[in-house]
Amino acid sequence: MNHEYYMARALQLAKLGLYSTSPNPRVGCVIVREGVIVGEGWHKKAGGPHAEVHALQDAGDMAKGATAYVTLEPCAHTGRTAPCAQGLIEAGIAEVIGATRDPNPLVSGRGYDMLRDADIEVTEHCLQAEAEALNAGFMKRMRTGLPWVRVKLAQSLDGRTAMASGESQWITGPAARRDVQRLRARSCAVITGADSILLDNPAMTVRPEETGIELEEHLWRQPLRVVIDGRNRIGGDAKLFAQKGDVLIATRKISADPITRDEKLGKLAYWSGESKGKVDLYALLQELGERGCNEVLVESGAALAGAFVAAGLVDELILYCAPTLLGSNARPLLSLPLDSMKEQIRWHWQDSRQVGDDLRLTLRPVKLPVAKEA
Amino acid sequence: MNHEYYMARALQLAKLGLYSTSPNPRVGCVIVREGVIVGEGWHKKAGGPHAEVHALQDAGDMAKGATAYVTLEPCAHTGRTAPCAQGLIEAGIAEVIGATRDPNPLVSGRGYDMLRDADIEVTEHCLQAEAEALNAGFMKRMRTGLPWVRVKLAQSLDGRTAMASGESQWITGPAARRDVQRLRARSCAVITGADSILLDNPAMTVRPEETGIELEEHLWRQPLRVVIDGRNRIGGDAKLFAQKGDVLIATRKISADPITRDEKLGKLAYWSGESKGKVDLYALLQELGERGCNEVLVESGAALAGAFVAAGLVDELILYCAPTLLGSNARPLLSLPLDSMKEQIRWHWQDSRQVGDDLRLTLRPVKLPVAKEA
Repeated sequence: MNHEYYMARALQLAKLGLYSTSPNPRVGCVIVREGVIVGEGWHKKAGGPHAEVHALQDAGDMAKGATAYVTLEPCAHTGRTAPCAQGLIEAGIAEVIGATRDPNPLVSGRGYDMLRDADIEVTEHCLQAEAEALNAGFMKRMRTGLPWVRVKLAQSLDGRTAMASGESQWITGPAARRDVQRLRARSCAVITGADSILLDNPAMTVRPEETGIELEEHLWRQPLRVVIDGRNRIGGDAKLFAQKGDVLIATRKISADPITRDEKLGKLAYWSGESKGKVDLYALLQELGERGCNEVLVESGAALAGAFVAAGLVDELILYCAPTLLGSNARPLLSLPLDSMKEQIRWHWQDSRQVGDDLRLTLRPVKLPVAKEA
Repeated sequence: MNHEYYMARALQLAKLGLYSTSPNPRVGCVIVREGVIVGEGWHKKAGGPHAEVHALQDAGDMAKGATAYVTLEPCAHTGRTAPCAQGLIEAGIAEVIGATRDPNPLVSGRGYDMLRDADIEVTEHCLQAEAEALNAGFMKRMRTGLPWVRVKLAQSLDGRTAMASGESQWITGPAARRDVQRLRARSCAVITGADSILLDNPAMTVRPEETGIELEEHLWRQPLRVVIDGRNRIGGDAKLFAQKGDVLIATRKISADPITRDEKLGKLAYWSGESKGKVDLYALLQELGERGCNEVLVESGAALAGAFVAAGLVDELILYCAPTLLGSNARPLLSLPLDSMKEQIRWHWQDSRQVGDDLRLTLRPVKLPVAKEA
């Protein structure tokens, strides 16, 4: 078997942490001796052991002289746990195959250096693209301070999200709605707008039983729910405050009469930032990056989704397209006033697949978003 | 090998006639003796020999005691050619495997009866669905008098076909435009509206070199170009009159000062029919059915495409979706005023595939179009 085979297995293990490792990355480790997998591990949860620790424990004495496959460069610093590079050295690992480097430019390469200094043979970049994709949010945050921004919208064939009256339940089917629950579950934060709260009054929570995901009870977490409410219009009776989990209200100026909430359900915080008379979306994303958010999901109406797109802040667009026509009076996908073909905003196809009776289209921008203050 | 194997080959042969057999159906025939294909044939062009004649010629004496696979029931009447059922009998064919019956209810089954009366063993319905799909237009016309109506539209991700100014060149890429040329080439008629003629002045012709289709020179044909011009707005200087091929102008009342045209390029005819102050689309389709049109392609703007959809006259919707956003000021896919979710028009997915950099979505209506006067 070649290196890619074992690394693919390590990536499978890493993916088990899709819904639980944040703010840490998803990482897997496989230990192989004479062509036999003798140890496997994955990082489950921040504060818990890293993937390498689990895999070394699993391998026991068999780790001596073995090869370790790691989807991310082993850490070289003492954080909440001892450095993993040291652990691999002490266990007698002879060779390390790595997929990606530590994305933080200040520490990148130090883990591999520590291994090489101990005469361990290190080969890098095995299935690097796959490993990067699994942690696109963590990678982006480490490199830019900003989270990965995913905008999700449900539309008809003719690009409409609701009737003129606002009526929209349900355009897409149950399989697409379950898929959205999974997008929420992998996200560190879910962003919506005051309009959506006032119109639909959603809970914005992850409902584990609707996701179809099997996860140990203690690994479930609720994403931070972020409401963009520039004019302080939402009230304390909105459904999202009555559900467990933290809430952040992003506004232009914090209200003189802020909403209060039973702290037992979760924290309620305010953040303010203004740019051109609107909530400053770029600064808000910086704030979420500082709070350790790797992936954020924008689930909003046409106005807010259009603002994220127009500002070039979107990394991934996910469109659930239902096989129906809602007609030309219905509401547009995005509020995005453009006048000529040269202003069009082009994307790359990433994926297209059927989800129940709907089609899910995944796209990424042709030009990468430019950091406003870069 | 089983029957499906040889019938699949017969269907491959039939498909060679995709662009040339109308008003006849596409038909293929394979003759098999002791597991070996000894004769193959397909119908090329109306007035020319049927598939069975070609296949029997190809087989020669080997046809004696052989099995014939036919994608359509052999004809039992003397038309432009002698009845094929008779030909199979005379050649000494021992067994016939058929995919579909003659769709005309008045003659359906007579070809097979003639074979059975001659002690030939007949098995029907082999790959019937595939054979029906290849001739959906011919089948529908024989059963209802109406052609198969395909509406093609090119749109952005947000369901827009042009900027507010009308600017639209080019939303989709060259591969999608080549694909549209192939849709035209297989159609008996291409329908457009006066608005499109006045705005874009298209030739509406098939340009063989753009199709990527290899076809013998004499098999190329131009679909009838139909312009729906209820108020007699288009002039004789429109580009489509200067191109070879027949033109039909469908109007509410024929102009007192009709357009004339150089007959060497092709015929120009008028047809009139009115319903509720508009050109009667249903009656127009009946007219096209009477003219032997199996498949018609609607290539128009939002208004006419919307009218076909609203009238329930569409059998197939083909959307070329480009990975771009044109914004909320841009023109809608269809002029289709609907007010509530219960009025939505639902479709079944038929196909979804990438064509160049665009996605081609093919859909069929959930409810079959109801014949107005049935």
